[in-house]
Amino acid sequence: MCGIVGYFGEKSAVPILVEGLRKLEYRGYDSSGIAVMEEGGIRITKSVGKLVNLEEKLGNRTYNARIGIGHTRWATHGRPSDVNAHPHMDCHGDFAVVHNGIIENYLELREWLTAEGHLFRSETDTEVLAHLVEHFYKGDLQDAVKKMLAKVEGSYAVVVLSYKNPDVMVAARKDSPLIVGIGDGEYFVASDIPAVLKYTRKTYIMEDGEMVTVSAEGLKFSDFTTGECVEKSVFEVTWDAVAAEKGGYEHFMLKEIFEQPKALRDTLAGRLNHDHVVLQEVDLTPKEVALFNKVAIVACGTAYHAGLIGKGLIEHWAKIPVEVDIASEFRYRAPLIDDKTLVVVISQSGETADTLAALRESKKKGARVIAITNVVGSSVAREAHDVIHTWAGPEIAVASTKAYTTQIEGMILLALYLTQAKGTMPKEWITEIISELGKIPDKAEIILKEGAERIKTLARYFEEVGSAFFIGRGLDWAVAQEGSLKLKEISYIHAEAYASGELKHGTLALITEDTPIIALATQRDLYEKTVSNVIEVKARDAKVIGFTFEGNTDFHKSVNEIFYIPETVNELAPLLTVIPLQLLSYYVSVARGNDVDKPRNLAKSVTVE
Amino acid sequence: MCGIVGYFGEKSAVPILVEGLRKLEYRGYDSSGIAVMEEGGIRITKSVGKLVNLEEKLGNRTYNARIGIGHTRWATHGRPSDVNAHPHMDCHGDFAVVHNGIIENYLELREWLTAEGHLFRSETDTEVLAHLVEHFYKGDLQDAVKKMLAKVEGSYAVVVLSYKNPDVMVAARKDSPLIVGIGDGEYFVASDIPAVLKYTRKTYIMEDGEMVTVSAEGLKFSDFTTGECVEKSVFEVTWDAVAAEKGGYEHFMLKEIFEQPKALRDTLAGRLNHDHVVLQEVDLTPKEVALFNKVAIVACGTAYHAGLIGKGLIEHWAKIPVEVDIASEFRYRAPLIDDKTLVVVISQSGETADTLAALRESKKKGARVIAITNVVGSSVAREAHDVIHTWAGPEIAVASTKAYTTQIEGMILLALYLTQAKGTMPKEWITEIISELGKIPDKAEIILKEGAERIKTLARYFEEVGSAFFIGRGLDWAVAQEGSLKLKEISYIHAEAYASGELKHGTLALITEDTPIIALATQRDLYEKTVSNVIEVKARDAKVIGFTFEGNTDFHKSVNEIFYIPETVNELAPLLTVIPLQLLSYYVSVARGNDVDKPRNLAKSVTVE
Repeated sequence: MCGIVGYFGEKSAVPILVEGLRKLEYRGYDSSGIAVMEEGGIRITKSVGKLVNLEEKLGNRTYNARIGIGHTRWATHGRPSDVNAHPHMDCHGDFAVVHNGIIENYLELREWLTAEGHLFRSETDTEVLAHLVEHFYKGDLQDAVKKMLAKVEGSYAVVVLSYKNPDVMVAARKDSPLIVGIGDGEYFVASDIPAVLKYTRKTYIMEDGEMVTVSAEGLKFSDFTTGECVEKSVFEVTWDAVAAEKGGYEHFMLKEIFEQPKALRDTLAGRLNHDHVVLQEVDLTPKEVALFNKVAIVACGTAYHAGLIGKGLIEHWAKIPVEVDIASEFRYRAPLIDDKTLVVVISQSGETADTLAALRESKKKGARVIAITNVVGSSVAREAHDVIHTWAGPEIAVASTKAYTTQIEGMILLALYLTQAKGTMPKEWITEIISELGKIPDKAEIILKEGAERIKTLARYFEEVGSAFFIGRGLDWAVAQEGSLKLKEISYIHAEAYASGELKHGTLALITEDTPIIALATQRDLYEKTVSNVIEVKARDAKVIGFTFEGNTDFHKSVNEIFYIPETVNELAPLLTVIPLQLLSYYVSVARGNDVDKPRNLAKSVTVE
Repeated sequence: MCGIVGYFGEKSAVPILVEGLRKLEYRGYDSSGIAVMEEGGIRITKSVGKLVNLEEKLGNRTYNARIGIGHTRWATHGRPSDVNAHPHMDCHGDFAVVHNGIIENYLELREWLTAEGHLFRSETDTEVLAHLVEHFYKGDLQDAVKKMLAKVEGSYAVVVLSYKNPDVMVAARKDSPLIVGIGDGEYFVASDIPAVLKYTRKTYIMEDGEMVTVSAEGLKFSDFTTGECVEKSVFEVTWDAVAAEKGGYEHFMLKEIFEQPKALRDTLAGRLNHDHVVLQEVDLTPKEVALFNKVAIVACGTAYHAGLIGKGLIEHWAKIPVEVDIASEFRYRAPLIDDKTLVVVISQSGETADTLAALRESKKKGARVIAITNVVGSSVAREAHDVIHTWAGPEIAVASTKAYTTQIEGMILLALYLTQAKGTMPKEWITEIISELGKIPDKAEIILKEGAERIKTLARYFEEVGSAFFIGRGLDWAVAQEGSLKLKEISYIHAEAYASGELKHGTLALITEDTPIIALATQRDLYEKTVSNVIEVKARDAKVIGFTFEGNTDFHKSVNEIFYIPETVNELAPLLTVIPLQLLSYYVSVARGNDVDKPRNLAKSVTVE
């Protein structure tokens, strides 16, 4: 989720690192830093805020260092600050580390290292890596990094420098991108291609489980588990700078849709145990949970739709009544909130003005407030009593995709947390849900791999239309609302979602053969009812595209087109169902020639009322 | 709300009465009956159900009577049954009465008459009229009716026969229509012109406070308060039969929109006291009200929108948390309902399948259920623990208008009832709201009289468009939802309502110069915020039509067109604001050449899921 760049060569490293970081700026960040190998030791410069702050600190001085690493941070563990910015060092300043990803067992490692006498300075998970390398270092940096990696669980792209081996740079990856660029007698390491594109188009793309040692002798790739050497072939980058920022995708939105398996995996990382969930950032005793007589979920736009799913799950599992409100309405309706209310605010940016105001109002009334947000250190994250972070990484496209699915995960985790505190569902059942939840990221991957082309062909139903309806019941209705908002935002088609059973109370008048209908039918207990509603719209000659589980081989008879979703339990279906709907909006928008990433009239983060 | 017909002449009365009643069948009814003057006494035949049931009872016999009265009933006081059907008689069968309207002080009169020794047979308010005439009769029927009228409060069109004056028929009206048709040596009395159109086009339209005595000598009109004679001129009906059914309006919907002042008045009748409301059909002690920890409102379509307003008022006034659910969703989401929940179901017809199922489910879970319905004796009315009837009268157009505004009144009355039980608002404040509420029917009349032409001109903004948005905050948002549904139903324009503050979270992408926006800005505390949102859409060149209170002379600067609503308190604004929106849908639908009363794909009462 952060940006990494490393330089090893004969030129002055600092300007190259800063330039590389600037190319990663489109990802957004909250702090940045560099470490360069100088006479007398590693020199570190870090600064909270935008890159320009770091540049100011660096000033106009000339730097002699020829080797260095840099990092732009998108905070996960630890709020944005100078001290939490990368690179991180060991106790004695001999080792410097930059890292993308999440170290899941960092708390455990930190305790152990602290007991061993290591002194920690930051709140990050990354710092354990520096101390681990220090711990294992016996004269060979590559060996120490290898031993360090054997200890850690999680995802990472990591680059390490050591003043004790000043002519070597070691990097490794697992579940977080990393590339090596080959210049003329110089090497670049980076999380993303744009960082190196100014200097070279010749790269090696590192694979999971690989490490590389960069030295004057050249590059040495190896498998860090077995230690065996790895032969790699050069990848010649043919993208221009703009395409490179999008990782080869045509638009950020498509890139972010495809990032969902990783975002979903990261958000679950370290939070699922065999028979219970762990939310380290939420501090509620079962006694406190028992005192809540209401949950009030408050959000705007897409986040509000994640809240609708939260309502379904919390009421169903934890048996606590839930209200979901649009933040701009909640603020002004004098809601009945007190110290027996658990308020949950959801905001990707953590800066949504109405949501923030709702949070403050709720605190004033004595409510306990949990935030679900994608930005560590955001206003919402700082001001809430507890936070559930989504680990979606920076979202650049205005139309939210990976933020939404990870917000749903946040709601599922919270619902399970409340349920286990209240003991309202049997343990075996929680075990079952957790097991199914763990499989969701892989299933999302299957949809993207196998379904994208199919959705592209379905997009033709929408090329000429002015209106479309999304229908479903229960959780499908909640997903329908998000699906229709996506289509609105980027295709400019007037799409609207309806609870299937409500169509005949008026809206059916709008249904003609020119109105495509998206019918969601994943909820098994509501399936027959949904089919009846589909037959109603089919009777008006509407074209119906159905979405249901693979096992449901009946539904295709009722619809014009069908898209199958991998099987999961009813309650988790939204995490999968929405993905083809996101793709659909995307392909329709492209077909209609719209600016997908920057739809007209809209801004990414709404910090005004 | 019922249908009345009377015959006085030389022909056989029974077939003429039956034929007249058939012409009133379009109004819907639940029972019917006739009374004819025969040798030996007045003969009454009544039957619950459709007119055909009455006809069966009458059989093929020939009747000699030349004078008679008939009635088709739309139940108000007392469920539909043989005994509650009109005509009603006194103790000895000497007087027969048919009546439309509501006698507000009937309980008090009934107690007094019972104490006087009168024996009541039915549950109706009408029966007191027969006993009152009996009480006052001293040999002159006209005099007895006059004295009876002096005693009663409420609205009525009434026709009386007496075996003691067998050659006279007396009729009177106040706030309920009544006409007299003049044939060749014969006279007809009727609530509506269609009942007499087969026989004559010459009529007298009776005015409030007038009575007429029909005898062989002719007609004698007088003012029943002063006793003075009244000169009337003949009204020649130029309408055809179809237009006559619509009371001269082009469509039932328009007729029903214009019936709202009366429907609003009738629904409040007898329920407003100086400083408290009276709901005779609701039987809750303050102690029982105090035990409710939640109100769950369940309805479909337009009735659901009335529920949204109920939520705002009950939470704001009575401080009880309220959930509003679409019935088809409520049923299947295993709602958290128990004996501490007050469930309110709303259904015009009282037969809406999903709403009825929700009612049954709620009762099973131990909840107390109050129904708000327009049909006495409907399934919902029968099965609920308590009922608040709306007195809108039969609604024939598929698009609901007067049912909606009276449902809002029902919600207001219930909110006040709960508030006075809980003592959550000061008495002076309740007095103020009740006083304002009493003025609403007159203000509705002003809008219809002075605003209809203006709305007709505004309709041109919608003639060519495919999409439109309705925006507002708080209660304005609830009304916006109803306004947009109306436009959808009959104009087939894809209209959608948005909470103003939510537009920028996606939907703003749809706003262009071709998208008309209806902006509601009646809620004084939210006015500034709404203006900001209007400016956002104006910046996208949208055409904005604003609706606000007369006193707000600022709003016209922010919008393209403005419509002013008579001032009232914030909470009662929905009752008025929706009326121009109904008119707008109507005129747009007419301009687009649609079938206003029977929009495509829709049915009036949804008795299937």
